[in-house]
Amino acid sequence: MARSRLAFLAATLCLLAHAAFGKGYATTGLSEAQQCRLQRIRATQPDERLEFEGGVAEVWSEDDEQFQCAGVAAIRNVLRPNALFLPEFTNAPRLVFIEQGRGLLGITYPGCAETYHSDRSSGSSGGRGRRWQEEGQQGEQGSGDQHQKVHRIRQGDIIAIPEGTVHWCHNDGDEELIAVSVIDLNNEGNQLDQRLRSFFLAGSFSGQGRQQGQQSRRQSGRYNFQNIFQAFDTGLIAESFNVPAEIAQRLQQQNDRGFMINVRERMRVIVPEEDDEEYDEYEEQQEGMRRQSRPGRPGRPGRHWPLNSQNGLEETFCTMKIKQNVDFRREADFFSRQAGRVNIVNMHKLPILRYMDMSAERGRLLPNALYSPHWSMTDHRIVYVTQGDAQVQIVGQNGQNVFDEQVSEGSMFVIPQFFTSAARAGDSGFEWITFKTSSQPMKSPLAGYTSVFRALPIQVITNSFQMSPRDAQELKYNREHQTFLLSPSRRNLPMS
Amino acid sequence: MARSRLAFLAATLCLLAHAAFGKGYATTGLSEAQQCRLQRIRATQPDERLEFEGGVAEVWSEDDEQFQCAGVAAIRNVLRPNALFLPEFTNAPRLVFIEQGRGLLGITYPGCAETYHSDRSSGSSGGRGRRWQEEGQQGEQGSGDQHQKVHRIRQGDIIAIPEGTVHWCHNDGDEELIAVSVIDLNNEGNQLDQRLRSFFLAGSFSGQGRQQGQQSRRQSGRYNFQNIFQAFDTGLIAESFNVPAEIAQRLQQQNDRGFMINVRERMRVIVPEEDDEEYDEYEEQQEGMRRQSRPGRPGRPGRHWPLNSQNGLEETFCTMKIKQNVDFRREADFFSRQAGRVNIVNMHKLPILRYMDMSAERGRLLPNALYSPHWSMTDHRIVYVTQGDAQVQIVGQNGQNVFDEQVSEGSMFVIPQFFTSAARAGDSGFEWITFKTSSQPMKSPLAGYTSVFRALPIQVITNSFQMSPRDAQELKYNREHQTFLLSPSRRNLPMS
Amino acid sequence: MARSRLAFLAATLCLLAHAAFGKGYATTGLSEAQQCRLQRIRATQPDERLEFEGGVAEVWSEDDEQFQCAGVAAIRNVLRPNALFLPEFTNAPRLVFIEQGRGLLGITYPGCAETYHSDRSSGSSGGRGRRWQEEGQQGEQGSGDQHQKVHRIRQGDIIAIPEGTVHWCHNDGDEELIAVSVIDLNNEGNQLDQRLRSFFLAGSFSGQGRQQGQQSRRQSGRYNFQNIFQAFDTGLIAESFNVPAEIAQRLQQQNDRGFMINVRERMRVIVPEEDDEEYDEYEEQQEGMRRQSRPGRPGRPGRHWPLNSQNGLEETFCTMKIKQNVDFRREADFFSRQAGRVNIVNMHKLPILRYMDMSAERGRLLPNALYSPHWSMTDHRIVYVTQGDAQVQIVGQNGQNVFDEQVSEGSMFVIPQFFTSAARAGDSGFEWITFKTSSQPMKSPLAGYTSVFRALPIQVITNSFQMSPRDAQELKYNREHQTFLLSPSRRNLPMS
Repeated sequence: MARSRLAFLAATLCLLAHAAFGKGYATTGLSEAQQCRLQRIRATQPDERLEFEGGVAEVWSEDDEQFQCAGVAAIRNVLRPNALFLPEFTNAPRLVFIEQGRGLLGITYPGCAETYHSDRSSGSSGGRGRRWQEEGQQGEQGSGDQHQKVHRIRQGDIIAIPEGTVHWCHNDGDEELIAVSVIDLNNEGNQLDQRLRSFFLAGSFSGQGRQQGQQSRRQSGRYNFQNIFQAFDTGLIAESFNVPAEIAQRLQQQNDRGFMINVRERMRVIVPEEDDEEYDEYEEQQEGMRRQSRPGRPGRPGRHWPLNSQNGLEETFCTMKIKQNVDFRREADFFSRQAGRVNIVNMHKLPILRYMDMSAERGRLLPNALYSPHWSMTDHRIVYVTQGDAQVQIVGQNGQNVFDEQVSEGSMFVIPQFFTSAARAGDSGFEWITFKTSSQPMKSPLAGYTSVFRALPIQVITNSFQMSPRDAQELKYNREHQTFLLSPSRRNLPMS
Repeated sequence: MARSRLAFLAATLCLLAHAAFGKGYATTGLSEAQQCRLQRIRATQPDERLEFEGGVAEVWSEDDEQFQCAGVAAIRNVLRPNALFLPEFTNAPRLVFIEQGRGLLGITYPGCAETYHSDRSSGSSGGRGRRWQEEGQQGEQGSGDQHQKVHRIRQGDIIAIPEGTVHWCHNDGDEELIAVSVIDLNNEGNQLDQRLRSFFLAGSFSGQGRQQGQQSRRQSGRYNFQNIFQAFDTGLIAESFNVPAEIAQRLQQQNDRGFMINVRERMRVIVPEEDDEEYDEYEEQQEGMRRQSRPGRPGRPGRHWPLNSQNGLEETFCTMKIKQNVDFRREADFFSRQAGRVNIVNMHKLPILRYMDMSAERGRLLPNALYSPHWSMTDHRIVYVTQGDAQVQIVGQNGQNVFDEQVSEGSMFVIPQFFTSAARAGDSGFEWITFKTSSQPMKSPLAGYTSVFRALPIQVITNSFQMSPRDAQELKYNREHQTFLLSPSRRNLPMS
Repeated sequence: MARSRLAFLAATLCLLAHAAFGKGYATTGLSEAQQCRLQRIRATQPDERLEFEGGVAEVWSEDDEQFQCAGVAAIRNVLRPNALFLPEFTNAPRLVFIEQGRGLLGITYPGCAETYHSDRSSGSSGGRGRRWQEEGQQGEQGSGDQHQKVHRIRQGDIIAIPEGTVHWCHNDGDEELIAVSVIDLNNEGNQLDQRLRSFFLAGSFSGQGRQQGQQSRRQSGRYNFQNIFQAFDTGLIAESFNVPAEIAQRLQQQNDRGFMINVRERMRVIVPEEDDEEYDEYEEQQEGMRRQSRPGRPGRPGRHWPLNSQNGLEETFCTMKIKQNVDFRREADFFSRQAGRVNIVNMHKLPILRYMDMSAERGRLLPNALYSPHWSMTDHRIVYVTQGDAQVQIVGQNGQNVFDEQVSEGSMFVIPQFFTSAARAGDSGFEWITFKTSSQPMKSPLAGYTSVFRALPIQVITNSFQMSPRDAQELKYNREHQTFLLSPSRRNLPMS
């Protein structure tokens, strides 16, 4: 029974993504205007490391030219078991990739219904009807609780978080929850300038950032972050919530636990009982139907089920799917037994991405396989290596080589729009996740079935490169049955 | 009879909004790129004052960081009775709030029909059929006139003026017509840079701007504004209009009357007879129906009625509603007997705003009532105080307090997107108008029925703030039945 | 027979447009942020000239303030007979106007079908069924070839090329093919900064640019352009295409032939047989219908016909029309026997422009006729003079005259959004092409049938300009029956 298995999980900690922290405003006299005068791109590890009670935030420098050009910020958060990433929102849409672990994620929209509901009359229950379950025992006061949907997240998930939306995360698994986030600062949804800004509802942090990596080019600074309550007048807060001053002061308290904290005891938030992806997927679909056909049903037995939302938002953000797992092999968009596979998450698979104008691509190359030389017609790409290594080359305008590295696990680099890149996996293969600044990305490959060369007349090729028609034929057709993912070349064997 | 009441009004002067005047291009070496490195926001009065024959333009400095961040310009125009604000257009969409008075407003679109028509055969008339009426007597030559629609505007109106659209205004009331405008320079519709530019079809101004307010940080300059005809070759103008050179010279004449002038005698432009809002509203709906069902009807008796437009534009801009009154209490979107009310004008109420990507909110807090702490997920807000006062706090990233003031009538300040703000009305209450840089604004409140706290599980709150479940319950539910507008707290009474 | 006429044409050379070449990145310390502090605009000839084996690229300086303000780059390419403009793509959408000559144009989209197909079983053929024809004899190896659509282009065509899309061009006519391109760098489709970047798939250039024109303000630099293959590792390229290293090296070879080269022998690419515009137009419509109703039809006799595309892209970009001829007099949007004509190409005529957010206007003024003073409400305009001359005046804000010139053939200038311009043709008339940065441009004329003056009440005019009602009537109605294009004024004759 899924419920009991969940109940046995150590209710430990979680995380989501980022840190933001918008430091260094005064450090640069340069215009924030996006510029792409890249002479050289380098794969980088996070530049700075902030240690909190419940985990670590690792931040790539926003001042790195490649991120400036792409208009993004990147963060890797490591949330330890039983830790809570405090509620926060940022000034631009964010895609998160769960690199490791599992946890619970809450995303709240103003005005959406509190569809997760636990009431006093508990007692055990069985059957499919009781799908939303409180982990652990009842709350200490025995009272019920209503709140917005909580999502089960796990390794391989891509999670979409719109700008300005509060989210929190809890690691209820038994290994570290590692999340890599890219925030699209240059997005229409952000009307502030192109700097990442995080707004925390709770927590505070006062301490030193630790420089890390060899490529760091600036001294790590001293941070002093407060949550958004701390600067308000206590009386104003107390009145706003209609609570005693002591409670308002609680909202404003300072400590050095940071923005990931350990929880005191097991969290018992309601989560869907689903335990594996298929079920999850199935249930989400069923759920959508049920909510429409049987609104409310107050007399229905069982403790927890989704209430109805109170306003028209339901049909838009309130019930929108916010995650998609990209590690299902059988759902690959490109698959080759000899070369590897690619899963794409665009606005067609995850419609909320239409509003966020971002997307992602999860890929795996088999040992020594290649990714066809190609360029993006629509977006910048931020590549994060999750496993193995590869030789990657990127060429910009005027045939300038701006990147030529052996990239390996944990490093990140930008492929600017229109720049041509190619990769050859190392001996242990190559796995990556790519974040893209378009909801409907399109790329143009040079080799393979859908390539430019196939589209060109033979005579254009022969004249362009002063080569024989036979050579041109080889360029057009030697990868005829492959696209994007290319098997290792076997030059001494007959062409396939 | 509405007609006679109108006829008795002193046909005096009017105005619309702005001045623009794009001075000081050479004064700043800074990039125009929008930046939001705000350490401190201040409520400000207009920085400069330009006096014209028929009124005064009061301009907020575009160089103020808060306006730079929001990408807007702001102007308050005071048009004296019987004055005319000369035809003008600007380089970005503008929302205007009529703070006081009444007047006539013309907005012209190229290619739309001249639907207001007065012919020679006048004579009196009665009955509902004759709805468009010429004020005063016939023109001196007795000839008729056709022109595009003229709108009656009055206190409480929000008026939408797209970029590049010529508008003029006449104060035909007996008090000053005061209009506050915000122009969204950062809007897609503006392909010039982020500077306000006004283009006048008539008038000119040569004189000194007068610095005003304590917060002004620059010397007031000498202005020399010309209308767009003045720099053209007289012959080219004469030929273009096919008129004698003397008339072309009239278009080009310079004087120091400025851009608000006194009219020589009562203006007798045709205006709708409507006199109160209900009628207006009703008539506008009827009008739309009539125009579709009875196109033209040339044989119809009566002097003035709408002609049909000559092209397909009619269905788009030509017949679009351009104003909405926000002072009707019974149409409030949020209303609380204990706290106050809010009227919103977004693209659903005023569809032209979809194209302009702006909106407005009119609000009133009762004495000592509160506006829930909240942030905007979608837009910058430019707040102009129309009455009373309030304590307002704004908190940015890292919990930095950027604003903490008692704001009062006539001052303006910006609440940047994502920044959290809260307000407590003073003893005489608080009234404001807010201009927003999104046509579909969304805000996220911290307290109240639709708040983030209600959406969070109790355990997330208890862990985040190290508080008891009981305290968390209070935060979630003590404002359970209120949203945005919060009644004065009565801490020593039982909770409602 | 159209086919035979084509076969007789000297299969010479072609071109398309541009050069890009993104030089001078280090030369300016200024922000790229678009600015429009124009004091003075000047009509300019191209600033620099690059000579290639097969033609010449003439480049307007991107640093010219007027182009900076409009956010565009402009190039005129001259491709000699029998030359090939090598495959290339750029970082922003481009509109091309074919000023002279004829040629073949290929535009390739990734994933679209290779719908042009020549097979081995050739032999002559007749009849309408065989519409796609290979020019000249079979390829030397006798094998067939499949490639994407090739377009016949000719004088007067406007061609739309989306960003990132590979295109090539061949001049198969007997006169120089001259193409003028404007690239909209400030377009949403370009996420790099506001600099033109060209990416060539073949060719290279190492040489000196030659300064030209009197207005050039900088030394012409030394260029060293490579195609995108040259910086890649040869082994990686060879593996990607699964070809021997020698072929990969061919892709990477350097020479100084530049980006327009002479072809070794007649190119025999398949082209539509169409020979005149009507046929072209008719066939395109028929073609669209046929492809839908009879997909594939593999058993159909005849050598060449469109195959079906392999994916859903077909309905979007793959089959979209990319060109529109603007020199058909009978299709003029504005036509006046006394004044001239204007043909507009916007998103309604060429739907691909919706995605590119650009449009064009082709105009002809008869001798001494006028273009009504007007401003654009929606876009910047880049005007290129193709014949004759005109006196043009442009007036900016505050009535500042920023342009007052006699413009003549071959020069280009920018009319910024909202700036008012007017023109009077010289004694031999005036012909131009205007490129616009909006797909749905709208302009507001001061004189004529759809003018602002007609829309204004007489009394607003009389008061604004202190003139008599009679004078105001003349302004409103003396050009009553004309719009935009105004016949030469005949002041001493009765008004028309």
